[in-house]
Amino acid sequence: MANDKKMVEDITSMEEDFAKWYTDICKKAELVEYTSVKGCMVIRPYGYAIWENIQRILDKMFKDTGHENVCMPMFIPESLLQKEKDHVEGFAPEVAWVTHGGSERLEERLCVRPTSETLFCEHYANIIQSHRDLPKLYNQWVSVVRWEKTTRPFLRSREFLWQEGHTIHATAEEAIIETEKMLNVYADFCERYLAIPVVKGKKTESDKFAGAVSTYAIEALMHDGKALQAGTSHYFGDGFAKAFGIQYQSKENKLEYPHQTSWGMTTRLIGAIIMTHGDNNGLVLPPDVAPIQAVIIPVAQHKPGVLEKAAELKASLEAAGIRVKLDDSNNSAGWKYSEYEMKGVPVRIEVGPRDIENNQCVIVTRHNREKSFVSLDGLADTVKEKLTEVREGIYNKALENRENRTYACTTMDEITKALDEKGDGFIKAMWCGDEECEDKVKEETGVGSRCIPLVQENLSETCVCCGKKAQYMVYWGKAY
Amino acid sequence: MANDKKMVEDITSMEEDFAKWYTDICKKAELVEYTSVKGCMVIRPYGYAIWENIQRILDKMFKDTGHENVCMPMFIPESLLQKEKDHVEGFAPEVAWVTHGGSERLEERLCVRPTSETLFCEHYANIIQSHRDLPKLYNQWVSVVRWEKTTRPFLRSREFLWQEGHTIHATAEEAIIETEKMLNVYADFCERYLAIPVVKGKKTESDKFAGAVSTYAIEALMHDGKALQAGTSHYFGDGFAKAFGIQYQSKENKLEYPHQTSWGMTTRLIGAIIMTHGDNNGLVLPPDVAPIQAVIIPVAQHKPGVLEKAAELKASLEAAGIRVKLDDSNNSAGWKYSEYEMKGVPVRIEVGPRDIENNQCVIVTRHNREKSFVSLDGLADTVKEKLTEVREGIYNKALENRENRTYACTTMDEITKALDEKGDGFIKAMWCGDEECEDKVKEETGVGSRCIPLVQENLSETCVCCGKKAQYMVYWGKAY
Repeated sequence: MANDKKMVEDITSMEEDFAKWYTDICKKAELVEYTSVKGCMVIRPYGYAIWENIQRILDKMFKDTGHENVCMPMFIPESLLQKEKDHVEGFAPEVAWVTHGGSERLEERLCVRPTSETLFCEHYANIIQSHRDLPKLYNQWVSVVRWEKTTRPFLRSREFLWQEGHTIHATAEEAIIETEKMLNVYADFCERYLAIPVVKGKKTESDKFAGAVSTYAIEALMHDGKALQAGTSHYFGDGFAKAFGIQYQSKENKLEYPHQTSWGMTTRLIGAIIMTHGDNNGLVLPPDVAPIQAVIIPVAQHKPGVLEKAAELKASLEAAGIRVKLDDSNNSAGWKYSEYEMKGVPVRIEVGPRDIENNQCVIVTRHNREKSFVSLDGLADTVKEKLTEVREGIYNKALENRENRTYACTTMDEITKALDEKGDGFIKAMWCGDEECEDKVKEETGVGSRCIPLVQENLSETCVCCGKKAQYMVYWGKAY
Repeated sequence: MANDKKMVEDITSMEEDFAKWYTDICKKAELVEYTSVKGCMVIRPYGYAIWENIQRILDKMFKDTGHENVCMPMFIPESLLQKEKDHVEGFAPEVAWVTHGGSERLEERLCVRPTSETLFCEHYANIIQSHRDLPKLYNQWVSVVRWEKTTRPFLRSREFLWQEGHTIHATAEEAIIETEKMLNVYADFCERYLAIPVVKGKKTESDKFAGAVSTYAIEALMHDGKALQAGTSHYFGDGFAKAFGIQYQSKENKLEYPHQTSWGMTTRLIGAIIMTHGDNNGLVLPPDVAPIQAVIIPVAQHKPGVLEKAAELKASLEAAGIRVKLDDSNNSAGWKYSEYEMKGVPVRIEVGPRDIENNQCVIVTRHNREKSFVSLDGLADTVKEKLTEVREGIYNKALENRENRTYACTTMDEITKALDEKGDGFIKAMWCGDEECEDKVKEETGVGSRCIPLVQENLSETCVCCGKKAQYMVYWGKAY
């Protein structure tokens, strides 16, 4: 009863307060818990299990594309961080500094890695001599620290988990191919496994990663019309190699500078899942990363044969490779329904005495709450079909939301009007390429995120801001 | 040719300089590389792949015993670390302190976790109210930092990777069962998967973990006769619960303090593998954690059909679930033999034109260099048998080393004499239980590691040191 009561406290509705709705889900679906260190969170078992599924799938994609995992130290000496000018300028203001080891003051302070380019460069300089040592295709799964002022679970925390790929190649061409390849891996991952449609694009000069020649990103549109950068892939040219003195002997016996890339995805993806698929009943999880893909809820479980049948069904689903949970606790069926809706379990299976008599059960899909009676024969196949249905259903819903909230604009007034009348979303507009216009669009309309999509459209011949000749079509948005 | 030359530089022999032999293997088998931060190392792909295999197996053992993974922050506020008196005394002298975030001085300094008891306790206090919330069986895979003075790759580094299990239970009894269960999981893991025989025991009062009621450990004997603690499991009683104000409402509606445990294993295990199984040709890897279980070396690979056959064999071994590599590089066969011996690959398969004609190949097992001609029919099964042979062979060799180097002593003179004449090893001797004798044994004979094995023997009635009535039989040793 106490438990029933607890679940009746609804979460804030997203229409009422989207930010509160978001944090309510984070807490009530038991994804995270706050700690006494501001901006640092505990990722609880249910949240971490989502991350483990993300890791497992991505790690395989990285290995299938020839990458190897390594592990760099978490500390970067200040002098090492300072070796590449743009990089240190970008990161120094937001790093955590270690100044003491035990009771002794360190001779040189160390920062906790905000990203590991400098560590990889130091390592490359040690291990790369010849063209035969290239390429190195590395990745690591670690946490990094950035001393953010305002923080939110998953979206912006002072410590977050991520993977960072770092590769080094003999030629610029190879490195550029790698940068684009990993952008595609990221996009495929988001669309196939997280059911999140993304726009692949290039960041503008002013928005690049600190030290990069070019930064590519995938951008997704959240339910509230705000943009979220879900992954980035950077091409560094030979700038880091020159700063760190990394050279190799070419086949022609000449000393050359190699070319580098890096690319990363973070626990922010969990935030993207919540804000893309969630609803007012809680989380809605993409089946591929859901810790529990199907939950079996026995109805009138005290009646003879019900729990036995439920256990039998569980075993058959498990044998078919479905992640399944049987909840035979003493909580009421109603409590259980809300609980697993809150936790976003894609498929719910209800089975009671009458169902068993009829050799059937009820299946409810989380995203649309559709109920169907299905035969117990071949249940595993039916559940797999339903999981596919959920994946496709939530992908299409997200795509529809993005399409409904993407506004092609040719004047500044149109931008303001679209945002005012239709709410936040992606603004598609032409741009001349000048930073001045970029700043002005942001200032006057509030859309600070910008991304030049790889697939370009020609909306008009002129820049939305200054009216001069347009160079690019840009997606603008308010960013998470 | 350049490569051939490189491999001919032998590593230092273990008889000449065991410590140098060890670091030579770490470097030449490409397990680690040093960095500019003392005591912090890069774990290279081959080293990290061993750790990934360890993780995969252990993680499954943890999940099979009901544990869930979580992730705590890496920072602990000073005031939180100070809540449990013994704990802070044990760890404060060796933590790294973060004092600044960006350019601002922090109001309270944060230490980089040396271990996470305090963080788990803070979290438990937030999430545990009722007996229905217990037990919590948690684990996390993270890195921790301890500001050691002298450091060595894997054995003692300032940052190292580990798993830390943390559990909390309604009763002392349950917590004690958990402590012992995980000690057994650790011992099984070492013996079955790493082929390292271990002694299960309890640490003495003076040697316990900071804040523990009792500490259990598994101890292994390295090739040079020194002892290595391979894993620890701690029972905390309700001391932390009291210090952190963690209470739960019992079934009888009373407020009670729960009981806790923690247990950990680290990348130190890789050091244990090197020093238990390695030889003067390099690493010898236990098949279960070897990144490459079998390497195929084509002989006269330019001859028609050789590479095709080698690739076909590779595919058939892979299909059987064996981690296999085909080295078809241009390096000489001799170079390849040394390279994969250095890297400890358990099974080498040589196949040339003559072999193919005879439908056979040569298999060489790394640990004893035994060569056999085997049929290509059913090769996967043969290789699996050979892998089992390697596992058993290296286990028995390690056990034999330990038995040869375990000396039962009943007087202090016998201890000194055994160590002098037979070299370092385990000393089995009776002990009265007084710390004074413990210190004296260490001082006079140099054996600082002590472990009270769970399986006791009665070597005599009296303490080896003071001659009073003995309470325990102890394994003493020089510790890594």
